[in-house]
Amino acid sequence: MTINLKENERLDELQRNGYRIIQNPEKFCFGMDAVLLSGFAKAKAGDRVLDMGTGTGIIPILMEAKTKAAHLTGLEVQEESADMARRSVALNGLTDKIEIVIGDIKEADQIFKSASFDVITCNPPYMIGQHGLQNPDEPKAIARHEILCTLEDVVSKAAKLLKPGGHFYMVHRPFRLAEIITLMSAYKLEPKRMQLVYPFVDKEPNMVLIEGVRGGKPRMTVEKPLIVYRAPGEYMPEIYDVYGY
Amino acid sequence: MTINLKENERLDELQRNGYRIIQNPEKFCFGMDAVLLSGFAKAKAGDRVLDMGTGTGIIPILMEAKTKAAHLTGLEVQEESADMARRSVALNGLTDKIEIVIGDIKEADQIFKSASFDVITCNPPYMIGQHGLQNPDEPKAIARHEILCTLEDVVSKAAKLLKPGGHFYMVHRPFRLAEIITLMSAYKLEPKRMQLVYPFVDKEPNMVLIEGVRGGKPRMTVEKPLIVYRAPGEYMPEIYDVYGY
Repeated sequence: MTINLKENERLDELQRNGYRIIQNPEKFCFGMDAVLLSGFAKAKAGDRVLDMGTGTGIIPILMEAKTKAAHLTGLEVQEESADMARRSVALNGLTDKIEIVIGDIKEADQIFKSASFDVITCNPPYMIGQHGLQNPDEPKAIARHEILCTLEDVVSKAAKLLKPGGHFYMVHRPFRLAEIITLMSAYKLEPKRMQLVYPFVDKEPNMVLIEGVRGGKPRMTVEKPLIVYRAPGEYMPEIYDVYGY
Repeated sequence: MTINLKENERLDELQRNGYRIIQNPEKFCFGMDAVLLSGFAKAKAGDRVLDMGTGTGIIPILMEAKTKAAHLTGLEVQEESADMARRSVALNGLTDKIEIVIGDIKEADQIFKSASFDVITCNPPYMIGQHGLQNPDEPKAIARHEILCTLEDVVSKAAKLLKPGGHFYMVHRPFRLAEIITLMSAYKLEPKRMQLVYPFVDKEPNMVLIEGVRGGKPRMTVEKPLIVYRAPGEYMPEIYDVYGY
């Protein structure tokens, strides 16, 4: 198979099914957050899955490897990222399983039918507004800051596109936790499961993984802490597992 | 000083300022949750503090030892617990600093003036309703189950009684976290700080400590994990610290 890499692009191994992904380190590369989300999220056999703001398609590609989902869609507003995602999907022979759609999260309910997905995943921009940004039109800025969509856009559109009883999975920063839970409750994506990711056992968490169920009842499980490093540079066993080493 | 212990009562050392507390193991003894809340909560010099549902007064007595608060009030609906709390306050020579008031959390806004406290603490009943209870009028049942007051009663009354910018500190169970955060946000006790208490580093948390600020802005800190046991029967150093050993 011919691999068309453009300028500055590179090919990275994903340690799952021999899958690889095209990334451009000048623009944006996926982080541990996307990998942890793909381990936290679940999809059952036959499920239809949507990843909102899929970037280079890392989450659908990992979810395809880890679950028995019937079909995965990645929605991405930036054409250049979507193009890389499509070429990665083709490279891994997954064009029948994964579709990359160019579009805006804010218009997701016009692009897809209401209540049409069993699972929605999202690794949204974490930072509020454009505070301190030099180049708010850069791919990195759009991926990290709420320039093109807010947390409320993500939660409200996910609630609309999920089937009743469908599952929403998101990774975010703990400093936004009160807003996350309040918005999810307001849009009836009841928070049912949460895991905090602590870089070290004696440090504040830097990520939160959260699952909501559309129309669920208010009672949640907080999971055991996910601790990343046993010592500097040495992962805990759970992290090697989720990366597939 | 004469110590009047009634039938089945015992006197326990608190490892702080030589303070002791009267408890009746047939009724209800304070747990680690109350001790951890007294370590998580803060009060500045001159602060007026209210503990809602104070039981035998453990939280005001520990807060008196640990902070420079000017005055602490304990509100307790069960006369027998309030009587033990009053005798413990007297026993420790704290009648000028701590007042025990008999009354219902649901009527707290009739008992106290609006916006009259700098700090409110609460270790409320954790369990919803009276499900499976044999004797819902027993002190243990009232302390553990939402028989006399609900989470919404606690949060709404605390919001009313706190000064603007005043601090609310609560310990609760993680399975109620979504309701806790949603209610605190709804009543403008913005969640600002949270710590999860994990019994062991590889187990689900069994307590959550949370701080809200009346009228605060939505951005919160999640603290490093509080892990209780290093090994079965052996506390982590932070736990020995908070107990004062």
